[in-house]
Amino acid sequence: MSPNSIYGYAGKILWLDLTKREAKKLELSREMARDYIGARGFGIKILWDNMKKGTDPLSPESLLVVSVGPLAGTSSQSASRWFVVFKSPLTGTYFRSVGGGYFGAEMKFAGYDAIVVSGRAEKPTYVWIKDDNVEFRDATRAWGLTTNMTTELLKEETDKSARLITIGPAGERLVKISSIQSDDQRSAGRGGGGAVLGAKNLKAIVVKGSKMPKLFDEERFREAVKEEIQTYQKSPALEGFRALGTAGVVDLFYSLGHNPSFNFMQREFNGIDNYKADVFPRYIIKRGGCYGCMISCWQFLKTTDGPYAGFFWDKPEYEALWSFGSNLGNANLEAVMQANMLCDKYGLDVISVGSAIGMAYELYEKGILTRKETDGMELRWGDPEPALEIIRKIALREGIGRILGEGTKRAAEIIGRGAEKYAIQIKGLELPAYDPRAAKAHGLSLVTSNIGASHNMGWNYFEITGVPKDGKQVDPLSIEGKGELTKYVQDETAMYEVAGKCTFPADFVMFTRENLAKLLYYATGIEEFKNPDYLMLVGERVYNLERAFNVREGFGREHDTIPERFVKEPFPRTPAKGQVFELDKLLDDYYKARGWDLKTGKPTKAKLESLGLNDVAKEINAE
Amino acid sequence: MSPNSIYGYAGKILWLDLTKREAKKLELSREMARDYIGARGFGIKILWDNMKKGTDPLSPESLLVVSVGPLAGTSSQSASRWFVVFKSPLTGTYFRSVGGGYFGAEMKFAGYDAIVVSGRAEKPTYVWIKDDNVEFRDATRAWGLTTNMTTELLKEETDKSARLITIGPAGERLVKISSIQSDDQRSAGRGGGGAVLGAKNLKAIVVKGSKMPKLFDEERFREAVKEEIQTYQKSPALEGFRALGTAGVVDLFYSLGHNPSFNFMQREFNGIDNYKADVFPRYIIKRGGCYGCMISCWQFLKTTDGPYAGFFWDKPEYEALWSFGSNLGNANLEAVMQANMLCDKYGLDVISVGSAIGMAYELYEKGILTRKETDGMELRWGDPEPALEIIRKIALREGIGRILGEGTKRAAEIIGRGAEKYAIQIKGLELPAYDPRAAKAHGLSLVTSNIGASHNMGWNYFEITGVPKDGKQVDPLSIEGKGELTKYVQDETAMYEVAGKCTFPADFVMFTRENLAKLLYYATGIEEFKNPDYLMLVGERVYNLERAFNVREGFGREHDTIPERFVKEPFPRTPAKGQVFELDKLLDDYYKARGWDLKTGKPTKAKLESLGLNDVAKEINAE
Repeated sequence: MSPNSIYGYAGKILWLDLTKREAKKLELSREMARDYIGARGFGIKILWDNMKKGTDPLSPESLLVVSVGPLAGTSSQSASRWFVVFKSPLTGTYFRSVGGGYFGAEMKFAGYDAIVVSGRAEKPTYVWIKDDNVEFRDATRAWGLTTNMTTELLKEETDKSARLITIGPAGERLVKISSIQSDDQRSAGRGGGGAVLGAKNLKAIVVKGSKMPKLFDEERFREAVKEEIQTYQKSPALEGFRALGTAGVVDLFYSLGHNPSFNFMQREFNGIDNYKADVFPRYIIKRGGCYGCMISCWQFLKTTDGPYAGFFWDKPEYEALWSFGSNLGNANLEAVMQANMLCDKYGLDVISVGSAIGMAYELYEKGILTRKETDGMELRWGDPEPALEIIRKIALREGIGRILGEGTKRAAEIIGRGAEKYAIQIKGLELPAYDPRAAKAHGLSLVTSNIGASHNMGWNYFEITGVPKDGKQVDPLSIEGKGELTKYVQDETAMYEVAGKCTFPADFVMFTRENLAKLLYYATGIEEFKNPDYLMLVGERVYNLERAFNVREGFGREHDTIPERFVKEPFPRTPAKGQVFELDKLLDDYYKARGWDLKTGKPTKAKLESLGLNDVAKEINAE
Repeated sequence: MSPNSIYGYAGKILWLDLTKREAKKLELSREMARDYIGARGFGIKILWDNMKKGTDPLSPESLLVVSVGPLAGTSSQSASRWFVVFKSPLTGTYFRSVGGGYFGAEMKFAGYDAIVVSGRAEKPTYVWIKDDNVEFRDATRAWGLTTNMTTELLKEETDKSARLITIGPAGERLVKISSIQSDDQRSAGRGGGGAVLGAKNLKAIVVKGSKMPKLFDEERFREAVKEEIQTYQKSPALEGFRALGTAGVVDLFYSLGHNPSFNFMQREFNGIDNYKADVFPRYIIKRGGCYGCMISCWQFLKTTDGPYAGFFWDKPEYEALWSFGSNLGNANLEAVMQANMLCDKYGLDVISVGSAIGMAYELYEKGILTRKETDGMELRWGDPEPALEIIRKIALREGIGRILGEGTKRAAEIIGRGAEKYAIQIKGLELPAYDPRAAKAHGLSLVTSNIGASHNMGWNYFEITGVPKDGKQVDPLSIEGKGELTKYVQDETAMYEVAGKCTFPADFVMFTRENLAKLLYYATGIEEFKNPDYLMLVGERVYNLERAFNVREGFGREHDTIPERFVKEPFPRTPAKGQVFELDKLLDDYYKARGWDLKTGKPTKAKLESLGLNDVAKEINAE
């Protein structure tokens, strides 16, 4: 190893300046590794240090960080996620989006813990990284192609076994709800990362690496992985996850008050049986999984008849099964499969797209949108055909798609006439498939999340799957203690994500903090990592730094809010009948638990300093 | 080499019995090699010897032969085509369809000159051939998939570098105008070969080979190839072909009276400028070519906007640019690209599909079809949208597609009410993009072709591209000497095709017969091949044997006919204004040239015996 290198890490941050077509390799400092661990931690640290307040996310000055954790490319399980961290053109906040598959490990093999994308290329460009060699290449040929066709073309131009992340036609057109997709069709879907790359004229990052990460204590590391695998194997969720991934819970979650129907109006949805777990197996023709993950939760579904016949594609995850399913009152699973595929191909976020379409359907029902504004389409609950056409229109910025592609918040403002009420979003990010009225801490997590209503940045498994907290069952409808509970899950998610871990196993309690400490210590040799409490502290540190980024951008308590539907319209069906979301009480409780100012929602000086963020406290004038 | 092997040949015929799941390897006899050379020659010889009169093409008893020539897999140019020979469910005649790409060479490398498919598998099956090893494998997973998705799946299941031919959803559903597609999207499009395989429950043949063919005199063979390449290089057509392939001639051929507009009504077509050669380059993002062909006439076109945005695909060839273009009065090139892609994916013949749709458009204009029968669609000339939907319906046998997928002849019979008049077909095979009224020998070739109105089995380059015959220009509108000229081109095509050669270079006179003789002799050492006249004799022999097959099936002069449009409706525009097709005169002239009976159209005993087909003469009671 070189004198500066650190076990477990690749040791380099690759800084791409698209304007100058320059690639710099910066040494990763031991301090940064210790304080932020990696992945989501590196993302916010680089963003905080290098991106000025008020930067337009679509300007050359904005940055987008792709980062992995110190366990990426190792045999540690579900640990090679690639994180994308940027300021979102959709929300104006800090943002982190994350994808799986093989890109993360490949990036590590090529020798990089993070890739920072800056500047703006004059013309469509892609970056081809083969170990130390970095080329800025003309992407004119690939520009305009769907993500899968881009993959085909760019692998031909580089190396068939290379891995890549790319944007689709939507990102090129700066659609605010555009995604970044990997060659294996994993999505960093949320927040409009596709548009950030599109604005930089960067079509794709293609990577091929040959260096295995060096570990501090290989033998003990292997032992820790063995222990990790045993924990997975003991989990009652393992087999279900393997069989169907997140698609296995659609009707169950509906019965819990989630998988919210009809744009969160939560009317009874008669089609729910078409999404039962036993419906899927007949479609499955192939399985797969991410690098280094024994769960292997990918299934590929085949459609053989009707309008969508002839393809196989990754199954829609729970969120897409909702956003194009019960959210639209649509009982046609095959149409959902089609919608999901179109979003992947065009490079669109399935949650935000489905939500925007759900809003349009409700606005149409209420007469706020008419056929004049829907390009002649009738938007009737249960009819998926217009939804499929709208997906294309969103991707290509045509007609009504031009408006809906701005996200529900901005789209509703453009439409006016009271449409805002039906935009189901927080800080501009569309809600995922959980109803805050039916799970209060989960709702609180959506309200306060640093990126807006995230589907996986603080997923409250105590409320959703009924895992006991300190031996006691948590009542999802109660508001008691929910501030602390929310903070706990948010920080814990952050902890796992600085290590580059996947949230699915975390959500189903397949990780233990003690095991994570072993993995990180034996991988890196960094003494602090031995202590599980230190890891949780880093989680909290990262969470607060993200919050500070938002504070610097002008966000405060007034933005930790929720659409009035959840506050004013009682939940209409079992099991949460009559429930509303008690916003203010929950928020007070949360800020207290966080050690943040109750009035402004700003982290206090004391809190930040306790996390070693003294400079940060100064910069945001924390008191 | 084994004692039985013959230079140049793989030496084996692989006989697949799907019913018994048995693969037999038969030795290729020296006699068969000498008398039929290969490819198209082997196809008809095997069919004639082994397929009983009156066999239902979709029964287990029917055979389908995939064959290559002795030059396949060598460095001889454009010589690795794979031929598919069978009795057509569309026409009831002998049929040969042919594709390019890499499958033909791979089949030779695996050790087979021909693969005979017989029987019927109990359930969806594919055959995986790795050199000597042949496996019958379950194709349940691939069943229902488009051809491109099948390729993806089956390469994963076998070998990423394997080559394959497959059917799509159309072939599975026994659509009469379904194709067979290769992994590199070359089509054996015509005659319903897809349905023949579909009826056998055979989804695909996947091949991987490792044996280079052994040649008789490698050094002299290389010299002959060098000479061949020089002929290519001297051809004025080479660069144009390389640049655009068959897409370069669309507007030129229109000006010659071809690329017939509006289902051969030949009204002025204002959109023709959208198909000019200079329109294509802006779409091209990739090029390619078949194994061992210096022309490399493949281009891949990209669409970046509008309803079909985001893909690249092989360019439509001349015929598809017609069948979905001027044939439908459609000026939207991108819609043609889409239609072409859909046909490739579903496994459909672009000519027959476009022609069936053209007929439907004309029937709709004439009020013979109404919206009740078109599933509510308005079929208006120039509007490609219904055409795209009909393609899907044909593939999946839905609504009007169920009827049109039978081919124009049968579809018109089903529709009745005088529709037959608008079915532009000969012996049930839809006409390609040439108007018999504007090129009489070419028309005569369509009328008399052994497979029906073929686009490439006797392409009269003297008439179409103006190559002089024996130093004299041929007037396409004259009928004089056209019997002899037609025979000449048909036999010549057969000669090149028994060698496995591509018809494109043949049509543009890039081959010479003398060079072919050298190639075949130095490859195989078979003395007879030294003599160019012998090769032409084999061409004629094969042509007559194909004819005999049809005679045995009950075909005669009455089937060598043409739709009344060409006989009764004078050609309306330049350069063939006022012309009709003089069927009877031309036919008499042709039979005379052929040495066939004028009344029955049957080859005479004398003719057959002069070709060494004494047994054949006996079997069809030739006089």
